[in-house]
Amino acid sequence: MSKKALFQHITSRLFSSSKSQFNVKSRLNPVKNIYQSSKFLILEENDKKSYKYPLVWLRDNCQCVHCFHQGSSSRTINWEKFSVNQELTAIERCEESKKVTLTWADGHKSIFDDNWLLSRNFSPENQKTYLSTHYRPDKNPVWGKNDFQKILKKFDYSEVISTDRGLFEWLETLSRRGIAILQNTPLTRDECRKLANRVGFIRKTHYGEEFEVIAKEGTSNVAYLSSALQLHTDLPYYDYKPGVNLLHCLVQSQSEGGFNQITDGFFVAQKMKEDFPAYFKVLSETLVNWSDIGQEDGNKFHSIYRAPVIMLDHEGKFARINHSVPQRDSFFTVNVDDVELWYQAMKKFVDILHDETVVFKTQPGEILTFDNIRLIHGRTEYKDNTNNTRHIIGSYLDWDEIYSRLRVLRSSLQC
Amino acid sequence: MSKKALFQHITSRLFSSSKSQFNVKSRLNPVKNIYQSSKFLILEENDKKSYKYPLVWLRDNCQCVHCFHQGSSSRTINWEKFSVNQELTAIERCEESKKVTLTWADGHKSIFDDNWLLSRNFSPENQKTYLSTHYRPDKNPVWGKNDFQKILKKFDYSEVISTDRGLFEWLETLSRRGIAILQNTPLTRDECRKLANRVGFIRKTHYGEEFEVIAKEGTSNVAYLSSALQLHTDLPYYDYKPGVNLLHCLVQSQSEGGFNQITDGFFVAQKMKEDFPAYFKVLSETLVNWSDIGQEDGNKFHSIYRAPVIMLDHEGKFARINHSVPQRDSFFTVNVDDVELWYQAMKKFVDILHDETVVFKTQPGEILTFDNIRLIHGRTEYKDNTNNTRHIIGSYLDWDEIYSRLRVLRSSLQC
Repeated sequence: MSKKALFQHITSRLFSSSKSQFNVKSRLNPVKNIYQSSKFLILEENDKKSYKYPLVWLRDNCQCVHCFHQGSSSRTINWEKFSVNQELTAIERCEESKKVTLTWADGHKSIFDDNWLLSRNFSPENQKTYLSTHYRPDKNPVWGKNDFQKILKKFDYSEVISTDRGLFEWLETLSRRGIAILQNTPLTRDECRKLANRVGFIRKTHYGEEFEVIAKEGTSNVAYLSSALQLHTDLPYYDYKPGVNLLHCLVQSQSEGGFNQITDGFFVAQKMKEDFPAYFKVLSETLVNWSDIGQEDGNKFHSIYRAPVIMLDHEGKFARINHSVPQRDSFFTVNVDDVELWYQAMKKFVDILHDETVVFKTQPGEILTFDNIRLIHGRTEYKDNTNNTRHIIGSYLDWDEIYSRLRVLRSSLQC
Repeated sequence: MSKKALFQHITSRLFSSSKSQFNVKSRLNPVKNIYQSSKFLILEENDKKSYKYPLVWLRDNCQCVHCFHQGSSSRTINWEKFSVNQELTAIERCEESKKVTLTWADGHKSIFDDNWLLSRNFSPENQKTYLSTHYRPDKNPVWGKNDFQKILKKFDYSEVISTDRGLFEWLETLSRRGIAILQNTPLTRDECRKLANRVGFIRKTHYGEEFEVIAKEGTSNVAYLSSALQLHTDLPYYDYKPGVNLLHCLVQSQSEGGFNQITDGFFVAQKMKEDFPAYFKVLSETLVNWSDIGQEDGNKFHSIYRAPVIMLDHEGKFARINHSVPQRDSFFTVNVDDVELWYQAMKKFVDILHDETVVFKTQPGEILTFDNIRLIHGRTEYKDNTNNTRHIIGSYLDWDEIYSRLRVLRSSLQC
């Protein structure tokens, strides 16, 4: 809750109907028995399942108007005075209202709905479901070259723009598979922005909010402009790397080129982990300096971010892939005797990457959308002429906004 | 280098004069001897220092026009065909031009300036300097309550807006100490935006680009609006949490309240690490669900991010602090038997946090700027009246843009 949000609480109570939560499906008579055992409240379900709730967690999450502000779904209990040692003096359950009332040693009372408690039960099964749906859909399946035709889904642009179901289906597919194509998009310039606004807003970078790939007539360097782009992830030199690329094809090259190349970096990382564990370790532990130096609209920049090619999260899962031959800095801040092994590992990574790359050519009216945290993309060389000038408009979205939209949609669509 | 950047290369060669690099200070006759040893090039300085450069790294970083695009400081060598096994057939050094020419087994030649090589030497000393200045200034000193008056620096707003030196000094102080105040700011609404544009651009969130804290006359809930804000970091529910807060005071409350509270979270983390290592471990390893649910300008959101209170980087250094009582979700996705220990650790963290909190009151014309990744802030309760309505305008900046601006300024100011 920001200061602005606090202000919102005052001027209107907009939130109460917008509470989207992770709820268990409706249960009849869910609670058979409820009692205290040691420092836990024990809730027994009819089917003999029982759940433990730590007393301190219950006190911390008291839902009364003094401890919790329903309008903003925010805890308001004063933690400066909070005590970790909590004791109960009474437990009362009302079968009719499906509520439990706890009375604490200091006389304070906390009332919890059965379903509120059940949806927050600490069982591994419940937590797994919460994490893989409500928190973030699993990035699954990862896919290699041979799986691509099976996993590639196309969506109708107008369905995504005009229906919540269409928006949800696109974003969930993008989230799980890392790629999706929108088709039948108008051939006008601001469709990426419209699409981004359906989700949240465009992610700005030092290149601005939108970028355009078009060879201008008369430039003396068209050959270079339309040269191959080696497989890479965009903007690895950002700590806060843009999450998703939107590439809207307005005009495609009719030459024997301009093909999109794309690879699932998590698939490559998985292969490295299984087949070359020593190389995997090197690529997931060695900090590489990614950098970009230049200027845009008169604004000079010099971005650097140090991170491994394969980034892992707290649990050792793949979190992000960084790869860009042009943006890998010549400053390599590692032990000099570790350098050669890193190159050997990197070469293996690039070899597998190319083996698993799929090639296709987006058509005018298609928006190629893909996960820039996970996928690695490139483009083959092409030749423009005055009657046929390849024209792409691109923007970025961030995963923070996409996951937020998915949760809101999952709640409103009840899925 | 994005697609747009590639386009820039064609239309103009803007970059060549903007190459800001980490260079060693000018050296006279820096190179005494240069030769190959095993898979390294050895460069001996006059003062008997010698540096090792892996051959594969040299080949990868060949600066010739085929392998490197000077205009965009980008490597263009084709890595699909790159070989990790590189051998030299000749090493030639020209004393006059201070350049080394390497001839590779396939006949390709690479020419390196002495200074280019020296600035990239792999010695621990050189790398330490590179990392603590060019990459990111050390976040040092961390400070407790008793150090605050010593570390707090104030800067003149117009100096920051109109001079590069002023901008650099502010950003470097903000980076190292986590806090700085700008004074003599006009009492007009768009100064945060102007300030952000001096650095890069405002960081947008689901609350928009700017937020306003003002109690509107006639609202029935002024008491709540002006109530205390417990110590917290902003937006912990963002994976990409905004880096820096800019809080411009237009009108301050004349009541006995409205004080800013602020604490160096890294200082608190350091104390936890030293004095309560078991609690420190718990707080740095337990993933907490931070969340925000609501709507803004008709746009519903439901953000969640799972992260520890004390986040560490690859090297075990403090990377980010997350703390917000209101935005800590009641969904706590951990082993139920670990919950109580987490609460004990958190209570200790909050106790130390409050012990080390400083209190002051910004004045109209001051912009309080502080590191939202590191510092924890709050505000005491205050009372408005019709003649005196507290009014703050705020925005965020991201560290990616701040570090980029610092590097560009360090280069242009030669500091």
